[in-house]
Amino acid sequence: MSDMPKSIEIHEEGPREGFQIEPGPISTADKIAFIDALSDTGLQEIQIASFVNPKRVPGWSDAEAVVSGVTKRDDIRYTGLWLNEKGLQRAVKADGLTLKGSISNCASEAFMIRNTNRDREQNLRVQHNQVALYKKHGIPMYRGGVMAAFGCNFEGEIPVSRVLSTIEEILTIADENDTEIGVISLADTMGWATPLSIKNVVGAVRERWPELQVALHLHDTRGLGVANVYAGLEMGVTLFDSSVAGLGGCPFAGSHGKPAAGNVCTEDVVFMCAEMGIETGVDLERLIDVAEMAERIVGHDLPGSVKRGGSLDKLRAAIH
Amino acid sequence: MSDMPKSIEIHEEGPREGFQIEPGPISTADKIAFIDALSDTGLQEIQIASFVNPKRVPGWSDAEAVVSGVTKRDDIRYTGLWLNEKGLQRAVKADGLTLKGSISNCASEAFMIRNTNRDREQNLRVQHNQVALYKKHGIPMYRGGVMAAFGCNFEGEIPVSRVLSTIEEILTIADENDTEIGVISLADTMGWATPLSIKNVVGAVRERWPELQVALHLHDTRGLGVANVYAGLEMGVTLFDSSVAGLGGCPFAGSHGKPAAGNVCTEDVVFMCAEMGIETGVDLERLIDVAEMAERIVGHDLPGSVKRGGSLDKLRAAIH
Repeated sequence: MSDMPKSIEIHEEGPREGFQIEPGPISTADKIAFIDALSDTGLQEIQIASFVNPKRVPGWSDAEAVVSGVTKRDDIRYTGLWLNEKGLQRAVKADGLTLKGSISNCASEAFMIRNTNRDREQNLRVQHNQVALYKKHGIPMYRGGVMAAFGCNFEGEIPVSRVLSTIEEILTIADENDTEIGVISLADTMGWATPLSIKNVVGAVRERWPELQVALHLHDTRGLGVANVYAGLEMGVTLFDSSVAGLGGCPFAGSHGKPAAGNVCTEDVVFMCAEMGIETGVDLERLIDVAEMAERIVGHDLPGSVKRGGSLDKLRAAIH
Repeated sequence: MSDMPKSIEIHEEGPREGFQIEPGPISTADKIAFIDALSDTGLQEIQIASFVNPKRVPGWSDAEAVVSGVTKRDDIRYTGLWLNEKGLQRAVKADGLTLKGSISNCASEAFMIRNTNRDREQNLRVQHNQVALYKKHGIPMYRGGVMAAFGCNFEGEIPVSRVLSTIEEILTIADENDTEIGVISLADTMGWATPLSIKNVVGAVRERWPELQVALHLHDTRGLGVANVYAGLEMGVTLFDSSVAGLGGCPFAGSHGKPAAGNVCTEDVVFMCAEMGIETGVDLERLIDVAEMAERIVGHDLPGSVKRGGSLDKLRAAIH
């Protein structure tokens, strides 16, 4: 009936996404305590800082202090985000981060221009130079990312052929730099995906490049985030980005003057997987505790559902 | 790849569910204006009142006034809920309701006892008598309902075989009364369903009784409501209950001392269907307006996502 995996891997982006967009201020100590709590949930990879311009993203002006304050576990990869060489230099110096090279591209040029102030040609040059920098710093290449892979607020529908040509550009850059990437991450940056378009796009990518692992980075802007994860699972996708408590969002992607909902919520995905027998390695009860901690830290309700509805295992334990 | 339908039908339960659980008080005039607005969205069936004990459910003490105040459109079926003969007598006298006979059963006896104060045997007798009353009043039989078809807070997992035997009991009652039902509604009363269990249970029911139409009544207690609708669509289900703005909920089904989230949200389901090319007959923009009206009437935020994220057609219109 489907290609459902036995286990998946989740890359937690709550700290990076959340502390970037929350008005705060949130203390460095709270950020560290939150990440330390996440480290005890069974997650294998957590993105814990963003090395961006502190004038543009004041929530991450303490990136170095957060990274150095976190208690690093050997069995977890702690990662960071950077958008240019300056950010990369900061990440290289940061204490105990796992650095991964990536090539970032966008299926919508209109969104790329708004988001990065680069057109397609300019972005390809920037990405070329980035890969050279990764080689210089000995950072292994990891993944190519396709933003706006399922639709764009400024261009509308994105044809599947465009997603494929955007990936081709990524693979060409890798090739020309004599390196390889193993993962293609498809991002529903503005919440346009449906379960059907997930199946169509993932299917087309897997058919063209069966050797590449497909990852999904899904937003829950219009309530389809979890359904889209399910469609990804049915297509055999085994790698998902998500945010505990649904932390984060994109200030460019919203409507009604409000920012858009953030990434699909980690504990909701973990819950669905656990109930369907798909292993994530994550302890749901602990993760729900951390989601509630996130609400205390940011001082308001956050989107996730399972922390409100409660896990089923708690009910099962009360019955038996 | 799947059995996805070209079109589905939605039975809107927001008014009945919402005004039952909201603390209010909500004026009769607001209820009528809200239902009248729903009538202009393209919905084919709206449940507009609950004829229950006003001492237990004060939010519906004005059921008769609401029903008589609503402007009835010829192309819409306005329905009501009752739980006993007294309620049925009130519904029969109400102005312009479409009455439909149903047989209600529950896959979990523990939940049935808590919810209705009847055990299985007692419920079967009550349902027998109900069917006789329907015949007496000339009310056509319509559907059998299975509560707790996907799991129960008080019994835990519900085996598929139990769902089938619960349906058999329903069909036996219909048979013994020399009548027939065409629809079996499977309710995820306490939010235990996953896309996988939807597929398993719906698949088993369809295999056993291919002549019956399967309907799904899904709650969004743990964030899987829309994903479960999608799984139902993949199984060819063409009839769903839902609540505009996610109005409603069940005071018995929650955890953390809060009531559980209500039905899956109508506009989120309509949005997903529209984006996947599945016809619902509903005008999404109008429905979003009604969802926002619901928030104004109840005086607080309601769960649905599309009213926050905005429709994609609005973005498309701004591009072209």
